[in-house]
Amino acid sequence: MVAINCDMGESFSIYHCGDDEGLMPFITIANVACGFHASDPRVMAKTVKLAKEHGVKVGAHPSLPDREGFGRREMKMDRDELTASVIYQIGALEGFLRAEGMELNHVKPHGSLYGMAARDPEVAGAVADAADVFGVPLMGMSGTVHEQVWGEREPGFISEYYADLDYRDDGSLIITREHQAFDPATSARGAVRAVTEGKASSVNGNDLAVRADCVCVHSDTPNAVELARAVNEALQPYLTA
Amino acid sequence: MVAINCDMGESFSIYHCGDDEGLMPFITIANVACGFHASDPRVMAKTVKLAKEHGVKVGAHPSLPDREGFGRREMKMDRDELTASVIYQIGALEGFLRAEGMELNHVKPHGSLYGMAARDPEVAGAVADAADVFGVPLMGMSGTVHEQVWGEREPGFISEYYADLDYRDDGSLIITREHQAFDPATSARGAVRAVTEGKASSVNGNDLAVRADCVCVHSDTPNAVELARAVNEALQPYLTA
Amino acid sequence: MVAINCDMGESFSIYHCGDDEGLMPFITIANVACGFHASDPRVMAKTVKLAKEHGVKVGAHPSLPDREGFGRREMKMDRDELTASVIYQIGALEGFLRAEGMELNHVKPHGSLYGMAARDPEVAGAVADAADVFGVPLMGMSGTVHEQVWGEREPGFISEYYADLDYRDDGSLIITREHQAFDPATSARGAVRAVTEGKASSVNGNDLAVRADCVCVHSDTPNAVELARAVNEALQPYLTA
Amino acid sequence: MVAINCDMGESFSIYHCGDDEGLMPFITIANVACGFHASDPRVMAKTVKLAKEHGVKVGAHPSLPDREGFGRREMKMDRDELTASVIYQIGALEGFLRAEGMELNHVKPHGSLYGMAARDPEVAGAVADAADVFGVPLMGMSGTVHEQVWGEREPGFISEYYADLDYRDDGSLIITREHQAFDPATSARGAVRAVTEGKASSVNGNDLAVRADCVCVHSDTPNAVELARAVNEALQPYLTA
Repeated sequence: MVAINCDMGESFSIYHCGDDEGLMPFITIANVACGFHASDPRVMAKTVKLAKEHGVKVGAHPSLPDREGFGRREMKMDRDELTASVIYQIGALEGFLRAEGMELNHVKPHGSLYGMAARDPEVAGAVADAADVFGVPLMGMSGTVHEQVWGEREPGFISEYYADLDYRDDGSLIITREHQAFDPATSARGAVRAVTEGKASSVNGNDLAVRADCVCVHSDTPNAVELARAVNEALQPYLTA
Repeated sequence: MVAINCDMGESFSIYHCGDDEGLMPFITIANVACGFHASDPRVMAKTVKLAKEHGVKVGAHPSLPDREGFGRREMKMDRDELTASVIYQIGALEGFLRAEGMELNHVKPHGSLYGMAARDPEVAGAVADAADVFGVPLMGMSGTVHEQVWGEREPGFISEYYADLDYRDDGSLIITREHQAFDPATSARGAVRAVTEGKASSVNGNDLAVRADCVCVHSDTPNAVELARAVNEALQPYLTA
Repeated sequence: MVAINCDMGESFSIYHCGDDEGLMPFITIANVACGFHASDPRVMAKTVKLAKEHGVKVGAHPSLPDREGFGRREMKMDRDELTASVIYQIGALEGFLRAEGMELNHVKPHGSLYGMAARDPEVAGAVADAADVFGVPLMGMSGTVHEQVWGEREPGFISEYYADLDYRDDGSLIITREHQAFDPATSARGAVRAVTEGKASSVNGNDLAVRADCVCVHSDTPNAVELARAVNEALQPYLTA
Repeated sequence: MVAINCDMGESFSIYHCGDDEGLMPFITIANVACGFHASDPRVMAKTVKLAKEHGVKVGAHPSLPDREGFGRREMKMDRDELTASVIYQIGALEGFLRAEGMELNHVKPHGSLYGMAARDPEVAGAVADAADVFGVPLMGMSGTVHEQVWGEREPGFISEYYADLDYRDDGSLIITREHQAFDPATSARGAVRAVTEGKASSVNGNDLAVRADCVCVHSDTPNAVELARAVNEALQPYLTA
């Protein structure tokens, strides 16, 4: 059984980001921004409501405190300070879930925090300490420090496969500043293979081992909705009830 | 039975504000800043821990989003936006309480938000909608819109008497930009009278009706600790277990 | 002789706002956001460069300190504090002009600061005190406190006519949360009439006296570029060299 | 001829930091915070006025955009983005200088930006590009990338000696989270030696070559005013007119 997740609620102030309404029907889990890299309280309230309407589970998508850089600039924080920063964000989101009678599903860090946690056990540990307060699993990439640190903790680790990004031969992702359009059929085929065979193809056509507890699609890919629909249709037989 | 409350955790970054360590032994309820007018995640974590060590109950002290003005500049916000802003802050604080195995005790708005809610039923209602999500009472002043709007809601209204401020004949408070030193013995006498007789003396010596479910002392009065100690000693027979 | 002005540089972080590249060819003056309601240093640097490429003059577009509300939430600030806030923003923009060898042309407040200054002489005076530091004119609406306070000061007052908004019979503007598309031909005709006759038609078809030293078009009207082009073409005979 | 410099204007909102009034009489150059790690427009206006009253020259003290971390958390920024960020801050300060009829004297980066620029030529270059816009010298440490990159540029490099910090044998500074009290007589002797002989003593008693165009004292050393007075008196024969 597998899930489809997407980062959601990244609008801010008057600014729109991503077609959340268009994507919600095709995902099963939303990673909702918590106001540090994107979003604000009104956007968070609206996003949680929207997820509820579509029966989509909600996890927290906390970030380094860096709105100007959209959470994509690395920052050095003390471990305790980082844990506190993540607790703050998860707690804030939890307030909106409580307002809707929903429960927090998981935590998936955003941007540079995700990347730093994939390489640095101290960062991964700081994030885990925050998630532990809420007793939820962390979501990340297999074969990285995510899996190494988060995989050993209760209540578990959710490994995700990226359906709209290319993998290098070493299993790392090719991330461009602006996401490129991606062929929906290719995405769908890749998602099914990752889920059923535990394998992905690198850009050079080599096979990589991946663990796909869920499949991630991005909201800022130019053809995001079309792509999410294709992945959703292809994964119908495997989706979590 | 009565409580003693104080605003706490208003330090930020490298900046110190208030002698929280000195005051904690003499209060029974702390109103903890939530990062919008003061505080940051590290300060919040530390303040909640400190309260726990002293057996002090913790409520949220949310503010308008105005760090530069310390939440003392009035802002016009839409009602939904204000409710979302307060939910965000209470939720964030609740995360730190959860980390310490504590429960949220109440909500008391800060600064201009407190003042606006004392005059404007829309603002008071917006704050109440947020507190309702967490099922806790609101704290404010009797004889104002606080009592009018918050007094009718479950789970109740906590009315506070200010032991270190002067009251005008109309029951309103005389608030100066910087709090003045206040005679501890006078504070203590006033607190006992408010609690036992439901009366306060105005600056002109007239009697005012007050409802003192709890007594508020400020952390930024020059002799705050001495004053809190005096109030605490005088109220010993009446303090909540 | 007349100018065409437009608010520019209101993107922020990863968020885009307005088709600045598309509009620059059709305007002669840009009001450039200064980082308090929108924009950030990188966007400001880019916007000033773009204006220079198109031979467009640059003025400062300062705001209340309210990024989350896009400067559209009224705030009560002390007069000295407000003046300092506006000096800060103008100075920051002036740094980017200096980098390009350009001179500051004027100051036009944004959003609620513009509206408050149109009604309150204290606010208008606070903004004027800031503009005086830089020795540049202020831009605003005739028939309001803008003209009353700013019209008496050297180095003068620039009165603007809104080509893409409807006027009420009392001369005030009908401003909706999201700007509506506006017929380009109607806009162009209105602009020419305002410039040549000093008259505007209200939504009820009544004539209003207006002073049109410049014509304002908005970047967030759905058909903004088309509309700016039409206004620009119609005003060709009257445009400042 | 030598100068005495001190970081100034690091208060924020209601929070006080450093005894600026007490220190101004004993320094000749102030490095004034620009709102990114500390300060706000009102504090900047006040600090510049205070410097003018004491005949103290004013330089900009820009920081990484990190108020919560007081500019002491390293951040990875693109070079262009960093230059724009520093231009913004210097420009903002320049507005307040203009209001007082003063000229910008120099630029000295704060905290982690200072430290990163001492090690990384890209960071030092980004800061230099910003200072170039204003045509002023940069202030930093001899024997570091500061001198290497900033020393080659017009209009020159101001090398500072730290009178209230200990040097390691390799010439680097021992910086503790909170500055320790420092013996004023030792500070004064060290300052005179650095100025007259170009030498400093390391904590191990070894001689280090230093270039002391100016002597830095900190405002947050516990005995800061006493120390500044001692350094000022000892340097009287060498102070810039």
